[in-house]
Amino acid sequence: MEKSLIDEILRFRDARNWKQFHNPKDLAISLSIEASELLECFQWASSAEALASRREQIAEELADVMIYAALLAEATGLDLEAITRAKLAVNAEKYPVEKAYGRKDKYDRL
Amino acid sequence: MEKSLIDEILRFRDARNWKQFHNPKDLAISLSIEASELLECFQWASSAEALASRREQIAEELADVMIYAALLAEATGLDLEAITRAKLAVNAEKYPVEKAYGRKDKYDRL
Amino acid sequence: MEKSLIDEILRFRDARNWKQFHNPKDLAISLSIEASELLECFQWASSAEALASRREQIAEELADVMIYAALLAEATGLDLEAITRAKLAVNAEKYPVEKAYGRKDKYDRL
Amino acid sequence: MEKSLIDEILRFRDARNWKQFHNPKDLAISLSIEASELLECFQWASSAEALASRREQIAEELADVMIYAALLAEATGLDLEAITRAKLAVNAEKYPVEKAYGRKDKYDRL
Repeated sequence: MEKSLIDEILRFRDARNWKQFHNPKDLAISLSIEASELLECFQWASSAEALASRREQIAEELADVMIYAALLAEATGLDLEAITRAKLAVNAEKYPVEKAYGRKDKYDRL
Repeated sequence: MEKSLIDEILRFRDARNWKQFHNPKDLAISLSIEASELLECFQWASSAEALASRREQIAEELADVMIYAALLAEATGLDLEAITRAKLAVNAEKYPVEKAYGRKDKYDRL
Repeated sequence: MEKSLIDEILRFRDARNWKQFHNPKDLAISLSIEASELLECFQWASSAEALASRREQIAEELADVMIYAALLAEATGLDLEAITRAKLAVNAEKYPVEKAYGRKDKYDRL
Repeated sequence: MEKSLIDEILRFRDARNWKQFHNPKDLAISLSIEASELLECFQWASSAEALASRREQIAEELADVMIYAALLAEATGLDLEAITRAKLAVNAEKYPVEKAYGRKDKYDRL
């Protein structure tokens, strides 16, 4: 996420004096709830049906996930870009191309 | 998220020929599962306990959330930065500073 | 759930002196995590594929959901059977047969 | 769950001709969403605060979890009581009293 967007999210929080509520545990709860609301857009629907009828809601719920990800990163002192790059490196070890190519199995079943 | 990082995530996917599995519904399921694994770091623990003993795991699970967010955005044609900025504008309407200052209530209870 | 099974769950907890950890908030977190692990059985799979290859795991994760439901009910003084019967009555109001027949829409769209 | 209550849930479903939508994957999604709505009752709140202000909502969301558990069990041919008793036996092996007494660690850390 661009630094300017993260800053905007933090300014939004601080303008409302919400940092006092934003302990990491409740932020992790909130991120999980938003991810579930995003999933709800696909309940009883195929991907195509969901995109056809709820694209705006999908965008809003995915954005809420991003906002809580930024807030949780700030509250825990993590850098979103750095941890994501680091995790890609871990995943590259767990899912080497020659084993994982065209397979959807978990790494422990490859 | 920086474009170069999104590109790296997509290259990781394409090198493994995984796009065929990445329909938006299963990506939304996956994002929800990763958010839940992130929450598991805080199960039976205070925020401080979780950060003291599981900081590395928190970083990895939060990174997985970011990776699936990028993959879902790509699969649905959404721009993560743009939808996040748009949602902040929506939230500013739902939570005006003068009503929401220092309060943790949902917008429909303000 | 049969009273004898609920009693067995509570004896399991008490034999390990775990009641001290079982505050309702962490039980609700735990229930959500188990429901997500149940969902993981269906990740990247159709219903038929999941049932063919992971039926045992589905049974175990669904059982974990039931165990936490019983523990949360006990911790909050709720009677699982009574609240379920009460909710069915609420749902019958929200989804009257003549409106909801053969439709998968949420009640606010019927 | 008492057989008469399970029967009532299935009659509710069949009266609305909903079995056609109730594939196990979407039921697992639904159960996960309801567990998340239950968790939302505890967002930004202590257990005591949640019980004081949202006890009715907690009861309703927990009931929804039970309803989807019953529907998923029926759709997958699982017996809720039997799988729960079987899982308790598995858990007794994973968490022997002498190792797990008074400890909240996962079995792989005992």
